[in-house]
Amino acid sequence: MADIENCDLKSLSPLQLFEKVTEQGEKVRALKAGKAPKDEIDAAVRMLLSLKLSYKTATGQDYQAGLPPRDLASINNGTKEEDEDLVDPWTVQTSNAKGVDYDKLIVRFGSSKIDTDLINRIERATGQKPHRFLRRGIFFSHRDMDQILQAYENKKSFYLYTGRGPSSQAMHVGHLIPFIFTKWLQEVFDVPLVIQLTDDEKYLWKDLTTEKAYEYAIENAKDIIACGFDVNKTFIFSDLDYLGTSTGFYKNIVKVQKHVTFNQVKGIFGFTDSDCIGKISFPAIQAAPSFSSSFPQIFNGKENIQCLIPCAIDQDPYFRMTRDVAPRIGLLKPALMHSVFFPALQGAQTKMSASDPNSSIFLTDSPKQIKTKINKHAFSGGRDTIEEHRKYGGNCDVDVSFMYLTFFLEDDDRLEQLKQAYTSGELLTGELKKVLIETLQPLVAAHQERRKQVTDEIVKQFMTPRKLAFEF
Amino acid sequence: MADIENCDLKSLSPLQLFEKVTEQGEKVRALKAGKAPKDEIDAAVRMLLSLKLSYKTATGQDYQAGLPPRDLASINNGTKEEDEDLVDPWTVQTSNAKGVDYDKLIVRFGSSKIDTDLINRIERATGQKPHRFLRRGIFFSHRDMDQILQAYENKKSFYLYTGRGPSSQAMHVGHLIPFIFTKWLQEVFDVPLVIQLTDDEKYLWKDLTTEKAYEYAIENAKDIIACGFDVNKTFIFSDLDYLGTSTGFYKNIVKVQKHVTFNQVKGIFGFTDSDCIGKISFPAIQAAPSFSSSFPQIFNGKENIQCLIPCAIDQDPYFRMTRDVAPRIGLLKPALMHSVFFPALQGAQTKMSASDPNSSIFLTDSPKQIKTKINKHAFSGGRDTIEEHRKYGGNCDVDVSFMYLTFFLEDDDRLEQLKQAYTSGELLTGELKKVLIETLQPLVAAHQERRKQVTDEIVKQFMTPRKLAFEF
Repeated sequence: MADIENCDLKSLSPLQLFEKVTEQGEKVRALKAGKAPKDEIDAAVRMLLSLKLSYKTATGQDYQAGLPPRDLASINNGTKEEDEDLVDPWTVQTSNAKGVDYDKLIVRFGSSKIDTDLINRIERATGQKPHRFLRRGIFFSHRDMDQILQAYENKKSFYLYTGRGPSSQAMHVGHLIPFIFTKWLQEVFDVPLVIQLTDDEKYLWKDLTTEKAYEYAIENAKDIIACGFDVNKTFIFSDLDYLGTSTGFYKNIVKVQKHVTFNQVKGIFGFTDSDCIGKISFPAIQAAPSFSSSFPQIFNGKENIQCLIPCAIDQDPYFRMTRDVAPRIGLLKPALMHSVFFPALQGAQTKMSASDPNSSIFLTDSPKQIKTKINKHAFSGGRDTIEEHRKYGGNCDVDVSFMYLTFFLEDDDRLEQLKQAYTSGELLTGELKKVLIETLQPLVAAHQERRKQVTDEIVKQFMTPRKLAFEF
Repeated sequence: MADIENCDLKSLSPLQLFEKVTEQGEKVRALKAGKAPKDEIDAAVRMLLSLKLSYKTATGQDYQAGLPPRDLASINNGTKEEDEDLVDPWTVQTSNAKGVDYDKLIVRFGSSKIDTDLINRIERATGQKPHRFLRRGIFFSHRDMDQILQAYENKKSFYLYTGRGPSSQAMHVGHLIPFIFTKWLQEVFDVPLVIQLTDDEKYLWKDLTTEKAYEYAIENAKDIIACGFDVNKTFIFSDLDYLGTSTGFYKNIVKVQKHVTFNQVKGIFGFTDSDCIGKISFPAIQAAPSFSSSFPQIFNGKENIQCLIPCAIDQDPYFRMTRDVAPRIGLLKPALMHSVFFPALQGAQTKMSASDPNSSIFLTDSPKQIKTKINKHAFSGGRDTIEEHRKYGGNCDVDVSFMYLTFFLEDDDRLEQLKQAYTSGELLTGELKKVLIETLQPLVAAHQERRKQVTDEIVKQFMTPRKLAFEF
């Protein structure tokens, strides 16, 4: 709803926006007090909501009357957005409260939409009901899934590759999305899986020691294992560790590095001359697991097994590069399935981030913490007062609680009922939040229970290079 | 002797130089025919010799009357030299027939001269006569050798690190220089040694497969082992191989890569935006063996053992970078000893190169090939005719046969005698060449004999990561 305004509002500083919101709030109060015509008040309220959203987009914080934005230096960076959504492996930013425009991204990235035909074909090939992430467009884009399916229909299998950058000990529920989906793919297709933990990347990008980055990798491995992966079909590895134990990994890395210039990574990732050479060459390290020859022990020396990568769309630049290089080094292009971002509690303008504790529901949060965070921070598409809400209804497109339910509530009918009730104004924000709280609390508790079972010995089993139980 | 002229002659094209030489030759003949005064003829001859040398410097070929330079395109590049010698890991070029000005390089690189005091101190510390490479200024520059010696005098040891880029199967005698000296250092100091074969570098820079580069590494390892290294004190490794078998190497590589920017490698190595990211990040791979933690198996997990790197001066840029990074990642700066370049047969303007068969005496050359190459291609500091030679004497400063003898003839007195006899005109070019041939033939034959003894099993022993026989 802020679309129209944003064009003008973008040039404003957070402080100027703050003043605009305050001004508009006073105008609304004056109109109401003066019993102005209904449509005039409505228009002013819409404008106020829009201004508040712009303020939130620019500052990452809710507007609070009498409390102007403090950290102007850091905030100013946030207002320098271009008209296009900013999507790369490090930043996801949009000015639209509904989140990134994914249809536009498909066009910009040159990928393909996961449409009903493809979903039906997956259902036929696997004999399983498509995962809710497919049914609801959460995995929305792909590259070469037709080839994967055609080969699979002809009894030719593939392997899965996904990963995580372990930047902190604590993972949040959004981090689970690719793993939940990957686990489902592994089960329904019955295929092996490699999971890369890019502790080297986190060492390069963050103020971390290699030891700390590796420690995070091990901790994150526990959360990943707790998703229920089968140890006989899954290999998890830390780059800092595995690079020194694989005879194939570095050879593929250096092959990719020979075929990508600085100009290319500059164009793809926005690197500059001031970036360290580690960052500049890192994309090859994320590329190499796309080739089965990087895992001689895992695939019993078998080269050129087709790879499928489920990942969030922000990781696509790495794999566009990989797919460009692959044929030039005599290797197969990996196929991809892309997910949307998991929105921050504060709204879909950015993805949930582990570095802001209030933007995230952590896998370690207690039921009480989950309740408090959702009630306090989940951006609402509801109206300011119960009266307005009953009258105009809530907006599911921007309501974070509803978005989260599309990720985690399995029952399609229930989700549709909630949507209609909220949109009509029948269901209040507090009631919708309650549904989300009651959905997430048992999910997180169950995860914590499973994680407790993950001993160091089990982690070691998953992370030991060994032949996986598959023949190709 | 071409020093004075070079200032004006440098701007001339090869063809213009050719015409100048022809013109000057005619002038000399006219003066002689006209029985001009002796000093006038002498001056004209000196000018002719100087012009011929300039021609050779610019074209890489001897002046031949009536045969103007052919490949002008490639030759023109040669004339675009700056006033300074060009010295980096890929190119060594100077316009001076005496070779690179090493005193200037010491100032430019900020290293220290290996002076008599230092050589005496090495003699005292080891109780051994200094190697001829030290006595004759072939290893001429160093960094932090005082620290190495002070620690050594206090019973604190160090390890040696040197290496080779295996760009072809055939090594030439010049390639042995660092290994001959390193072997001597290993013996007199009784210290362990690691030798890096940068097959990954050669894959990145040349049109080679990784398999071919690795094959060259193994072949080169045989020639290196044939220098007589002790298997209990020496570890030889290929990057493509060792990176995947060491738990410490990659961690140090990524640490260096985090602390060096593209701007820095651009400044040091002249990389451009069009270079592949493999080249850009490679310097870290040559840096990492300077740290003992890159070799946990070799040094039994002991970190921060001091490293000394004997290498040709063209490798110094890698280690200037390494020394800059080391303290920032909590590691010791490596010390260095730099050698001069081994000149090409055609003259000291460039180093011997394996890619030009006529510029090199290969370790696989037969006695006959050695004889022919020296007689045919070794640039002579002698005069054009026996009469002139007897009269003016030869010039040892530019005579390649004499230079080679300083590298390979152990007997100081004999070398001095040869120098005096050649300079006075008593010894003719052919006679000097004969001494070199008789020195090199048995050396190369003995090398070939030792190389035959190097079985695959022995190579495997040297290249297997294992604890070396030292306690620190």
